[in-house]
Amino acid sequence: MNFLEERIVMDGIVKEGNVLKVDSFLNHQMDIKLFDKMGEEYAKRFAGKPINKILTIEASGIGIASVVAMHFDCPVVFAKKTQSINLDGEMYTAEVESFTHKNVNHVIVSKRFLGPEDHVLIIDDFLANGCALMGLIQIVNQAGATVEGIGIAIEKGFQQGGQIIRNLGYQLESLAIIEEMDASNGEIKFRSQDK
Amino acid sequence: MNFLEERIVMDGIVKEGNVLKVDSFLNHQMDIKLFDKMGEEYAKRFAGKPINKILTIEASGIGIASVVAMHFDCPVVFAKKTQSINLDGEMYTAEVESFTHKNVNHVIVSKRFLGPEDHVLIIDDFLANGCALMGLIQIVNQAGATVEGIGIAIEKGFQQGGQIIRNLGYQLESLAIIEEMDASNGEIKFRSQDK
Repeated sequence: MNFLEERIVMDGIVKEGNVLKVDSFLNHQMDIKLFDKMGEEYAKRFAGKPINKILTIEASGIGIASVVAMHFDCPVVFAKKTQSINLDGEMYTAEVESFTHKNVNHVIVSKRFLGPEDHVLIIDDFLANGCALMGLIQIVNQAGATVEGIGIAIEKGFQQGGQIIRNLGYQLESLAIIEEMDASNGEIKFRSQDK
Repeated sequence: MNFLEERIVMDGIVKEGNVLKVDSFLNHQMDIKLFDKMGEEYAKRFAGKPINKILTIEASGIGIASVVAMHFDCPVVFAKKTQSINLDGEMYTAEVESFTHKNVNHVIVSKRFLGPEDHVLIIDDFLANGCALMGLIQIVNQAGATVEGIGIAIEKGFQQGGQIIRNLGYQLESLAIIEEMDASNGEIKFRSQDK
């Protein structure tokens, strides 16, 4: 197990309905030293890529992206979620369906902060069905920028998002990929990442 | 002028209605190196305080707080904004009135992440009327924790929040305090911070 998998086993809580609670270190209380280690690991996995911008999505991606950015020496842009969009042409927008909340959100990024010259690393805390991530990829494409890679903290390997995105040819690096989890005994099985 | 004031003069845009747009470096695109400098400065201004936790509020406080936390070697908790609250007793909650959006939001923090043992530095990007900040202070008080200080990036010195909070006895450190700004010519006047 790597450092993130160990932490998930130690502090994550498996709930009914394939829910993994990691709010004690990832998405409510945030362990900044852990994020720093994650940045170190992404820097290894995306070494040699000409990354000059990190793109994430509010709210829980922002903390990770900000600390990770210190390892890439580049700014972070966070996409905003909004129910209504103002089509004034100043924003890139994508629709994101939320299965959790059963509604459609728009994800927006100002056109001033993403363009053809940008080589983007997308960072987010969770990957499940991939809807949010597809929205971010769409926005990078609208900008004529390049997706150099995608760094995720925790991927739910039993949902389809990871496979879809890898099949599209993107370098997707999830630091922990969960194959199964069992709320009855709290057990979590990770996909092997030995390379 | 200090480094943040210089940056505001260089990249901030003054709009009608006392609006200052700093989305190119503070709250949409984020200059992580700038945040690192801010962390260095807060570490000086709050030196000697037994800070063991940083509290901020989603979304635009999270990036600053996460990078600043590296200078305090402590975790960050971000309060969530929600329209509805579930009064199941697991959350500290405070009401926050938004003058911008003319509605009332609730700010919530899980009781698991804040308690009497905590010495808290509150971090946020903007201080204007102080409503969001008062909500965070209320939550720290509900937890029986101690507010050791408050670090703000930009304070609108012509609104009342800063004065109210200083009058309550808190150590409030705003790295840039705007006395006046003029949308017609883009001029910004800062409060002198020579000590």
